[in-house]
Amino acid sequence: MKIPDFNDVLAARERVKPFIHRTPVLTSSYVNSLAGCEIFFKCENFQKAGAFKVRGASNAVFGLSGAEAKNGVCTHSSGNHALSLSYAAGRRGIPCNVVMPRTAPQAKKDAVRGYGGLITECEPSTTSREEVFAQVQAQTGGNFVHPYNDPRVIAGQGTCSLELLEQMEDFGGGLDMVVAPIGGGGMISGTCLTLSRLAPDAQVIAAEPEQADDACRSFKAGHIIADDAPETVADGLKVPLKDLTWHFVKNHVSDILTASDPEIVDAMKLIWQRMKIVMEPSSAVPLAIILKNKDIFAGKRVGVIITGGNVDLARLPWLKKD
Amino acid sequence: MKIPDFNDVLAARERVKPFIHRTPVLTSSYVNSLAGCEIFFKCENFQKAGAFKVRGASNAVFGLSGAEAKNGVCTHSSGNHALSLSYAAGRRGIPCNVVMPRTAPQAKKDAVRGYGGLITECEPSTTSREEVFAQVQAQTGGNFVHPYNDPRVIAGQGTCSLELLEQMEDFGGGLDMVVAPIGGGGMISGTCLTLSRLAPDAQVIAAEPEQADDACRSFKAGHIIADDAPETVADGLKVPLKDLTWHFVKNHVSDILTASDPEIVDAMKLIWQRMKIVMEPSSAVPLAIILKNKDIFAGKRVGVIITGGNVDLARLPWLKKD
Repeated sequence: MKIPDFNDVLAARERVKPFIHRTPVLTSSYVNSLAGCEIFFKCENFQKAGAFKVRGASNAVFGLSGAEAKNGVCTHSSGNHALSLSYAAGRRGIPCNVVMPRTAPQAKKDAVRGYGGLITECEPSTTSREEVFAQVQAQTGGNFVHPYNDPRVIAGQGTCSLELLEQMEDFGGGLDMVVAPIGGGGMISGTCLTLSRLAPDAQVIAAEPEQADDACRSFKAGHIIADDAPETVADGLKVPLKDLTWHFVKNHVSDILTASDPEIVDAMKLIWQRMKIVMEPSSAVPLAIILKNKDIFAGKRVGVIITGGNVDLARLPWLKKD
Repeated sequence: MKIPDFNDVLAARERVKPFIHRTPVLTSSYVNSLAGCEIFFKCENFQKAGAFKVRGASNAVFGLSGAEAKNGVCTHSSGNHALSLSYAAGRRGIPCNVVMPRTAPQAKKDAVRGYGGLITECEPSTTSREEVFAQVQAQTGGNFVHPYNDPRVIAGQGTCSLELLEQMEDFGGGLDMVVAPIGGGGMISGTCLTLSRLAPDAQVIAAEPEQADDACRSFKAGHIIADDAPETVADGLKVPLKDLTWHFVKNHVSDILTASDPEIVDAMKLIWQRMKIVMEPSSAVPLAIILKNKDIFAGKRVGVIITGGNVDLARLPWLKKD
């Protein structure tokens, strides 16, 4: 599979520009004082379709030739990629079939349907997802846009840190590191692609839930370790690395740090409370790992990708379920 | 009592600049399509201390002479003014005593204490609040900064629509109307002050909860009607008009429209879900009245003040309490 390069990121940026927002960068003096570093939050929760994934999905959809687009697109996704691909396909006027775990948040399923996506449900395991997806793809003949192990998707995600680096000029300087959540590794790979060219001295640090720490274990072991059905509050981060994203993790990522589910929920609540933004549990993992590893970040200028805001408002994780 | 004029707004703007944020203006194509008009949300939920009230409070605190500031400041408030005055007093390094209803959200009480404010609790009625406050003021000798019936406060609130009008240049034009919530009328009065000078053709429409509709009844009757202890989900809007704010309501406001508590909660949830921002029930009243009076707003360019974001995340109004 072709490894994307920085020119692909630049091409993606022009291709997706009409379909996405240039999302704001927010700061909080309270959070900074708590963390002991300067954090610049790139707010992809305000992105079209509610998550950064629309960058990669739009790059794939609008890069298809007329012939390639004929049968539409299809994918499997725990949520945000499904939404984003449905949105992008809708903008191009082609069908979009998605396989989603039946346990995905109702808010995400509703939003996929709202954008015109067609859902086929599977069990919440990698095995089931891949089986059901093979059937859907065979039936529809759609172009498969993998949620992360796809050069078009990785190049699209790279446009996020491209914007962030430009926006840092408003904050009087660059970044010492960028922290992003890691699930399958699409955002992290795109971040590596952009930073290795534009800010080669900046570290890329991946943040992962302890309860789905396959990327961290892979990183230490030197080869991909995949779990079949991990369970964590960070529902967007349960999927394993694949060959293309593993390439970037292995070669470019400085470290992978983990946080427990209660630490993730605490960080999420802190961001809602102090920054007044609605974001997903997955997006809180970077702040959770910063708060528990203050020595690593002390005094640094840290970019943090708030990856998405598609959360079920009736099932917030800090509310007791009794 | 001196009626503030537009020069007071301009002076306030310079005085408060170092202590407040220039908050962003957000739009949502989804909300626009639902409402049938173009809405520009001025996001004071991202403001310092979490609400627009810091504008008026800072203008009052930093306008005091050294002698006037000697004993600090004091006030009574259902929440956001208490927070804001504590914040501003803290920045100036003077004490701040606030009388708050014991039923005020815990999150607001915690935040007041976090900024160094000293709380004395009262019963949730206007009568009790005024009694307890008289004692606190006598004991401390602090300068009384009324939450809204104070020319310094009204001039400070006027800086919000001043910014909004400037920011509209990024959106290719002006506004046909501005909708803001009305409780005691401080924000509405400041809005009238600024719009009557800078956009005299734009209407100012006040949005009020049906269950605390004293301003609406006052507007129709031609004199102030005050309720002692109204109960509504929009906890920031329970207080009555006073002479200074009544002056602006009577002479400048185009109309006062009301929404029921369920309509307010629906509008609040819609904003959280689609715009990914955390805001208070009080801030949702403008969208609620727009959605139920679409004919009035059809095709217009409407500014909406999102007044604050200080909400108790453990007690969201769309969650069943059983």
